[in-house]
Amino acid sequence: MKNLNEFNLTEAVTALHRDIDNTRLKVVMDSLVKHLHDFARDVSLTESEWMAGIEFLTAVGQICSPTRQEFILLSDTLGLSMLVNAMNQRKPAGCTESTVLGPFHTDDAPPAANGEDIAAGAPGDPCFVRCTVRNDAGEPLKGARVDVWQADEAGNYDVQYAGDDRRARALLRTDDGGAFWFWSIVANQYPIPHDGPVGKMLDALGRHPWRPAHLHFMIDAEGYPRLTTHVFRNGDPYLDSDAVLAVRSSLIADWVRHEPGQAPDGSRQDTPYYTLEYDFVLSRERDVPAPASH
Amino acid sequence: MKNLNEFNLTEAVTALHRDIDNTRLKVVMDSLVKHLHDFARDVSLTESEWMAGIEFLTAVGQICSPTRQEFILLSDTLGLSMLVNAMNQRKPAGCTESTVLGPFHTDDAPPAANGEDIAAGAPGDPCFVRCTVRNDAGEPLKGARVDVWQADEAGNYDVQYAGDDRRARALLRTDDGGAFWFWSIVANQYPIPHDGPVGKMLDALGRHPWRPAHLHFMIDAEGYPRLTTHVFRNGDPYLDSDAVLAVRSSLIADWVRHEPGQAPDGSRQDTPYYTLEYDFVLSRERDVPAPASH
Repeated sequence: MKNLNEFNLTEAVTALHRDIDNTRLKVVMDSLVKHLHDFARDVSLTESEWMAGIEFLTAVGQICSPTRQEFILLSDTLGLSMLVNAMNQRKPAGCTESTVLGPFHTDDAPPAANGEDIAAGAPGDPCFVRCTVRNDAGEPLKGARVDVWQADEAGNYDVQYAGDDRRARALLRTDDGGAFWFWSIVANQYPIPHDGPVGKMLDALGRHPWRPAHLHFMIDAEGYPRLTTHVFRNGDPYLDSDAVLAVRSSLIADWVRHEPGQAPDGSRQDTPYYTLEYDFVLSRERDVPAPASH
Repeated sequence: MKNLNEFNLTEAVTALHRDIDNTRLKVVMDSLVKHLHDFARDVSLTESEWMAGIEFLTAVGQICSPTRQEFILLSDTLGLSMLVNAMNQRKPAGCTESTVLGPFHTDDAPPAANGEDIAAGAPGDPCFVRCTVRNDAGEPLKGARVDVWQADEAGNYDVQYAGDDRRARALLRTDDGGAFWFWSIVANQYPIPHDGPVGKMLDALGRHPWRPAHLHFMIDAEGYPRLTTHVFRNGDPYLDSDAVLAVRSSLIADWVRHEPGQAPDGSRQDTPYYTLEYDFVLSRERDVPAPASH
């Protein structure tokens, strides 16, 4: 293991963990080292570029906090998150497609009853959301756990503000007919946090940080694989240039604007409001084959 | 840019920076995205593995401080640092080879005159070092700037201790004959810092964190490319398993032990001491071709 050159170094590194029992770790690390080295060789990476990379990754790590995950933003903007999602969350035709989790999910969304206003003071135009959760035989899935979260009209999630308030975020359950419904605010387009190293990277690449308006849903029904997805707002100017490449046509729906009057839940609305309807379809199938290659 | 799958995502990401003017950045990012995605595809990276990776990189970033560079340790242990060194610091036959910089270099080494004791209190057996710097025509290079740094007998560099004291680290100049000499302490084998995420990674891979004993040298002579290298201690048990894969046979030298008596600089030593001699050879050549492939 002396006198290694730019070609035989790769094998020398992987030989160091040749004998570990954790065969999966070995497979992952062998591939990681090989691709990392191939990258450096392919571009003839210079020492100053290497140092710039070290400094960039350090800055990405240093800005992370309990409410900011810059490495997820980096993964999202480089398409890695969507790639991992696409490989692990394939759904059969006719079922609701998955998309990225994003960096703003929390494990402490407040429970809410159907019909409640989950905005909890988050600013934005009122929006009534009514959805159903069914399986691919059309049967309603009752008692499914629905985690929903979204940005406010300023484009911020609750965790992006000081304090621990939870707003425009809730845990709901489907009723006997597989339905769940709530009041919230209209989702708005927003830039991903871009005041840090990932923002600088996007700038250098001539890329914008915007995401089209969407609601996040994470649906757990007993016996079914979890569905993590968004519903995107039809007409949003960023549907074709999502900074994290996560848009699927089947996930685009209309936010319908209404003048003041009686809303679908019977309530009286004194200001204009919106409604959104979306029907989720879950499958028990876990091993959906990959699409027909490239 | 909707409905991307695990295959066409890669091209979609690189298409986002298709038109940037910085063609080098484009080349580097295209390759990085391609290799990152190929890695994820090759191993069918799972969502929990992806999250473990995010958490690992975050921990690497968070432990970094002005005196600890965990991303350099990560790069070192994955062989990337040595690969970048090998590609960028090729030397003609007969010239002193280069090796990695490592994470312990500082820009503020105290100047020292030839003959001084640079240990400045760092613990270890005394060692007298005498070297020459010549070019590949055998001519001595006078006035070359020599930055030297090393670990103490406990295996620690000065920057690993509290406080800003600089010990066993100095800036010297070669004399008219191309020579420089100093007293310091004997270099010892040491583990790279392994109480952080990189240490956990090495554990998981069944790898040890040890480096064979060495002195670091960075030599700048006017008109010559900088030489960044080590001199390794002959007989060290880790010469064949350096945690950062940086050993070159041509850089191994003898630390010779002497009983108390008169040292080569004429001084009287009351305890056993060591001597090290090494001759550096620099070339003006900057574009040395790669070795004959694999």
